[in-house]
Amino acid sequence: MVLEYQGTRYNGWQTQPHGNTVQDVVESRLALILNHPVRVYGAGRTDRGVHARGQVASLETANPMELERMFRGLNALLPADVAAVEWAEAAPGFHARHSARGREYCYQIWRGRVCSPFHHPFVHHLYRRPLSLEAMNEAAARVVGRHDFTSFCAADSAGEDMVKDVHFSRWEAHGEMWHYRVSARSFVHHMVRNLVGVFIEVGLGRRTPQDIDRILAARARRAAGPMAPAQGLFLERVDYEDPATSNGGEA
Amino acid sequence: MVLEYQGTRYNGWQTQPHGNTVQDVVESRLALILNHPVRVYGAGRTDRGVHARGQVASLETANPMELERMFRGLNALLPADVAAVEWAEAAPGFHARHSARGREYCYQIWRGRVCSPFHHPFVHHLYRRPLSLEAMNEAAARVVGRHDFTSFCAADSAGEDMVKDVHFSRWEAHGEMWHYRVSARSFVHHMVRNLVGVFIEVGLGRRTPQDIDRILAARARRAAGPMAPAQGLFLERVDYEDPATSNGGEA
Repeated sequence: MVLEYQGTRYNGWQTQPHGNTVQDVVESRLALILNHPVRVYGAGRTDRGVHARGQVASLETANPMELERMFRGLNALLPADVAAVEWAEAAPGFHARHSARGREYCYQIWRGRVCSPFHHPFVHHLYRRPLSLEAMNEAAARVVGRHDFTSFCAADSAGEDMVKDVHFSRWEAHGEMWHYRVSARSFVHHMVRNLVGVFIEVGLGRRTPQDIDRILAARARRAAGPMAPAQGLFLERVDYEDPATSNGGEA
Repeated sequence: MVLEYQGTRYNGWQTQPHGNTVQDVVESRLALILNHPVRVYGAGRTDRGVHARGQVASLETANPMELERMFRGLNALLPADVAAVEWAEAAPGFHARHSARGREYCYQIWRGRVCSPFHHPFVHHLYRRPLSLEAMNEAAARVVGRHDFTSFCAADSAGEDMVKDVHFSRWEAHGEMWHYRVSARSFVHHMVRNLVGVFIEVGLGRRTPQDIDRILAARARRAAGPMAPAQGLFLERVDYEDPATSNGGEA
């Protein structure tokens, strides 16, 4: 299934001790519909306050219920800030996380003097000027390809593989709304928000685009800068090989 | 000033005994900034749960504070769901309500099977099919001009002038998002939502566009139909004559 959610009032996607996660909400509603406990696997990590326009999640059930009925039921039970917007039966062995070939995130910055109440929950409001889109784009281009992202990783990530392949990384301006779009097979924890934090410092002229190379080479969290706030971040989409042939071969 | 607000958690614009109105919020924050109690006059009525993308409000103050400082202060104190997005010093005698020459409202219907969490607070979700945009537009065109809108007025409106001049009234489809746009110098209470309620019945084939003439002629609330829900309605904009010459001549 493809899920959209406004992350504002959740402790992120993934089930955790303090509860109140999107995964909890989806699993509890599905359990009511399927009449058995169910585990739902999400493709992309979203932390507390982060939104999704295209989270993909999968589950297994022996319940022969028609998909249409199952998801109409799910959407009827889900709170208004979470919705399953697409669904399909997957090939045997499909796993939303393991089978994913790419995740795309979008970070939104609002450049207007005043932040509209309709944008507010979904942007980082940054009016400060000048902010150089060109310099931010030069910096963003420097993380494309295979790099060790230890410097952009949350402190709690011991044991994770820090080497990631970034497919694209770029800023786009749509009037006062600026989008940073980045895609990779996978990300280290807090990678997008830590990248955006440094790109903003570059845009403000406090660092140069070339500093990105030095920060990557340092392999130390302290080499980067402040993390951008959660509310501007969206999990935009998750890509798979042709779903008919994808079988979750990755470990 | 031009105000934007998400009406979801307010009891409408106008101060009332149960409190928690947008007017209360704006007045209380301005009083802190101006250091005196202040009355703020809004141009358009918005009921409980109705939003505004272009409410206009005016106030008088003897405080010589610079406008820029005053409104930066106001926005800093306002909750995230209300913002002053434009401001200017008005001509003597200007009054946001009395000087207004036209109000435009927009009503949003979401036609998709599933309602995205990002649209949910701002639309009436109506998946039911078929719904004829053409018939709804024929019906909408029949209220343009001068009519007695008693049939489309809330029950609590004794003493109001029921004759209103509608400048335009039309439906537009933008993919699954349908907008009804209507402009008039002023409206009777609940007029837009009552009109939308009947237009939907026309779209569903339960009434004909010609029924609009009969409903108008009946001058009785029971002749119309169910009122559309508040959350789809926006006060879109308020029009004035050239603000430099407008002086609130209307009673």
